[in-house]
Amino acid sequence: MTQNSFDPKAFRTALGTFTTGVTIITAQAADGTPVGITANSFNSVSLDPPMVLWSLAKTANSLPVFTESKHWNVHVLSVEQEALSGRFASRGEDKFAGLTLDDGITNAPLLPGSTARFQCRTAFMHDGGDHIIFIGEVLGFDQSDLPPLVFQSGQYALAARKPREEVRLTQSEPPPECSYTEDLLGYLLGRAHFQMVNRLKGLLDEQKLAQEQFFILSVLCIRDRMTLSEINEYIAYTGYSVDENDMQVLTDGGHVVIEQDRYRMTADGREASLHQIAHAKAIEEELVEALGQGDAMALKLLLKRLIERTDPGLPDLWAVSS
Amino acid sequence: MTQNSFDPKAFRTALGTFTTGVTIITAQAADGTPVGITANSFNSVSLDPPMVLWSLAKTANSLPVFTESKHWNVHVLSVEQEALSGRFASRGEDKFAGLTLDDGITNAPLLPGSTARFQCRTAFMHDGGDHIIFIGEVLGFDQSDLPPLVFQSGQYALAARKPREEVRLTQSEPPPECSYTEDLLGYLLGRAHFQMVNRLKGLLDEQKLAQEQFFILSVLCIRDRMTLSEINEYIAYTGYSVDENDMQVLTDGGHVVIEQDRYRMTADGREASLHQIAHAKAIEEELVEALGQGDAMALKLLLKRLIERTDPGLPDLWAVSS
Repeated sequence: MTQNSFDPKAFRTALGTFTTGVTIITAQAADGTPVGITANSFNSVSLDPPMVLWSLAKTANSLPVFTESKHWNVHVLSVEQEALSGRFASRGEDKFAGLTLDDGITNAPLLPGSTARFQCRTAFMHDGGDHIIFIGEVLGFDQSDLPPLVFQSGQYALAARKPREEVRLTQSEPPPECSYTEDLLGYLLGRAHFQMVNRLKGLLDEQKLAQEQFFILSVLCIRDRMTLSEINEYIAYTGYSVDENDMQVLTDGGHVVIEQDRYRMTADGREASLHQIAHAKAIEEELVEALGQGDAMALKLLLKRLIERTDPGLPDLWAVSS
Repeated sequence: MTQNSFDPKAFRTALGTFTTGVTIITAQAADGTPVGITANSFNSVSLDPPMVLWSLAKTANSLPVFTESKHWNVHVLSVEQEALSGRFASRGEDKFAGLTLDDGITNAPLLPGSTARFQCRTAFMHDGGDHIIFIGEVLGFDQSDLPPLVFQSGQYALAARKPREEVRLTQSEPPPECSYTEDLLGYLLGRAHFQMVNRLKGLLDEQKLAQEQFFILSVLCIRDRMTLSEINEYIAYTGYSVDENDMQVLTDGGHVVIEQDRYRMTADGREASLHQIAHAKAIEEELVEALGQGDAMALKLLLKRLIERTDPGLPDLWAVSS
């Protein structure tokens, strides 16, 4: 499968499988104009003395500034800087418009909001084919808690960290006659969901409400004054279907009132629902803490993509009602 | 927050926020001995001529071999090569033990199972502080479909790719009086789970079974001959509780028989259960195809970590029964 002919596209694709972070590298021209480019060719070189490197295309407009300027700053971009990455990757003029700069050690522009920053002085420049390799001595650096943006095979990504030990929920293999393993996505989704629901259950018990009532209140919280059949339209995807008896629990509890076949949430009902949401958010915060912010973002992103792919065409609960 | 004093540990930590792939770089000593090291300092340099670079500590045992040998191979490791990464990162002697090598263009060892490989000839070597920077001309390359291994902040990781457009399930914001958004992890887990269940529902309808029976058969498939209360122990986490009526559906359907208070699966019952598992696996394969293998692995990994963190102490269904 070795390719000796250098189809540039195939070569670029193969190189792209090497995952990288994304950086913006900035410098100041002699006339004071700030320049900056998005680069993923950054890497560390030396700890002592502290040195890093990156490379820039010989055809880049900003090449003269970077070769003449003694100083440049590397910004390891955070997940919140994807738009900035796009802006500095384009040939647009006003890349720094609207950006507030931090004070740096040198005159090179220092952008806020990154995961890490390295303020450098050019140590060497080397020829690297159609690029120039810049090797810099690091004069100063800093780091934030923001999860870093990742780039792989031409796409932005988030990193889902792998613990040193493989995560296994059971230590045993399934019996040979049954291939139902803990690795089945359906099982993992179900168990993760049920364990979340169980964490909410204590509150629902206190509120003397079952899961059905939780679903109803959640739906009414977003979209009030619905008939029973409308409520069921939005709940149908859960496999649950609610009836007048389920609603009766809520009217008896003072959570909803019925007005001309439509159920309306009372102030008490809204309070109960907001209490549930606050509880769900508290559970979530605890989990984000445990998983790490980057991993939690990755999980949500992947769940949304999964939901998109398996959506049977559910009505949009949040859509403005007609 | 800028640090000017170079605490080497803080500097290394800041550098580590720049995500990278993981490579193994190999060469052959003059006496024929193969050498190889794990490196994440790899990066692309030039497309025309095709060039890549990486750097090696001046203290590395293998430095003389790499400086004397004209040729070396870069292997961009796949997620399946994490153990190999560990092996080549250590100072152990017999790194190549048990490995079958592929035939390469040069005499440098060529390992199988990588995401991409680059066979190179040294073009330049440059001083880089405590490292030597190797710049190589790429003589040949190849690529597989295996998702690449990722390294970030001292941990292995998987990449969860972000589509160009933000994934949004709804185009609308929730009303101001309700903060229940599509971004709530509990909602995403629930919806993802229910949508998976709904995909299985067609088969269950055909089999004239409800979700309760699906749970019972799944449990008996892994661990047969249980009493009703034992079955309920394993189902409890779903929030469902089954009774004799639910079991009656299965005995009537010929799926289980009861023997001294214990339920045993019949051949028909096992067949129905295996059919369900096969169906669940087919749904999963479709989703893995849609998400990509790497993203599917990342999703499973994150779900397992979430389940671990929220596990109320469920009995291990797969554990060998006493």
